Amino acid sequence: MNRKGIIIVVSGFSGAGKGTIMKALTAKYDQYALSISATTRDPRPGEQNGREYFFVSNEEFEKLIAEDGLIEHAGYVNHYYGTPRKFVEDKLKAGIDVILEIEIQGALQVKKQYPEAVLLFVMPPSAAELEKRLRGRGTESDEVIRQRLSRAVEESVGIENYDYIVINDILDDAVERVHGIITAAHGAPERNADFIAEIRDELEKL
Amino acid sequence: MNRKGIIIVVSGFSGAGKGTIMKALTAKYDQYALSISATTRDPRPGEQNGREYFFVSNEEFEKLIAEDGLIEHAGYVNHYYGTPRKFVEDKLKAGIDVILEIEIQGALQVKKQYPEAVLLFVMPPSAAELEKRLRGRGTESDEVIRQRLSRAVEESVGIENYDYIVINDILDDAVERVHGIITAAHGAPERNADFIAEIRDELEKL
Repeated sequence: MNRKGIIIVVSGFSGAGKGTIMKALTAKYDQYALSISATTRDPRPGEQNGREYFFVSNEEFEKLIAEDGLIEHAGYVNHYYGTPRKFVEDKLKAGIDVILEIEIQGALQVKKQYPEAVLLFVMPPSAAELEKRLRGRGTESDEVIRQRLSRAVEESVGIENYDYIVINDILDDAVERVHGIITAAHGAPERNADFIAEIRDELEKL
Repeated sequence: MNRKGIIIVVSGFSGAGKGTIMKALTAKYDQYALSISATTRDPRPGEQNGREYFFVSNEEFEKLIAEDGLIEHAGYVNHYYGTPRKFVEDKLKAGIDVILEIEIQGALQVKKQYPEAVLLFVMPPSAAELEKRLRGRGTESDEVIRQRLSRAVEESVGIENYDYIVINDILDDAVERVHGIITAAHGAPERNADFIAEIRDELEKL
């Protein structure tokens, strides 16, 4: 069977653990690649071009937009962030499922262009657990935590646009559920039209 | 989270192994129940009322139809077959996923009444493999095998109505793929509206 990759869009509340799930998923299974975003912000210490981000100038970014070289992009705190199309399409062609960790505006831009993309929204098991995780980091002020929590309320309005919610209770279970969702998606008839046609032809010849 | 059961409809080519997959699935996981059909045909030796089928008279069957007591039904070789609604709805309420092994006409009747039902179509890895399995049974004449194969061609026309195809290559893998599909389905936002509303409320109170 000729397997083509799927785009998986992952959003979720800050602190729900989407990054951790995706890191564990890509470490466990070869079939996934994390998309690398382009950004105009400066690299932070330890960040490498082409690993965390593709670091580009404003001019380069605007050229990418003009050439339709980005699947989605958004401005955030004075900088651009976007998903380079070429990286994603090369992976899909090679049969690799590509994971995009982006917010809802980007998610909807992707779904418009790639209706067969699978949209996941990662949630904590409860609001109290989310607060606990945010406080547990110990790195953020009370005010920042409040901001993140009230931002979560805003984000929760868009959940209905997603195909699946993933509750991050136990990390390994959440990883397996995400893997199950994507494996299931590969079984949609529209993704297997060639296989279905082929088996029909073969049956008729028997 | 208040988990409600899901209806899973399973169809597939004769010989593709759908019965074997479903038996292995229900043996492995507690969350599934196989729906038991009502039929007007006589029990065969070894069959028990309420285990393989509910064996009913023509009058009883027609009463079930008249009372809307069947989710779907069909006539086949002079006898009625149908899925009693009560059994299915009791299981769903108890949080059990109910598996219906039925053909495409029945599958479409179910989808109409329960749009959130998940429709699976089990296929062999190839037409040659299907023929091999049918011949391997050693119980059927060449003519019956030919009939089954040409029937498979007809059935393959309806595959596009299903949500997922499941290729039965290695039994354990197929069982896990089916389990993954159903687990994924439980994560649809419309099935988790209460949970989403609850977490939103909690977040607003924090």
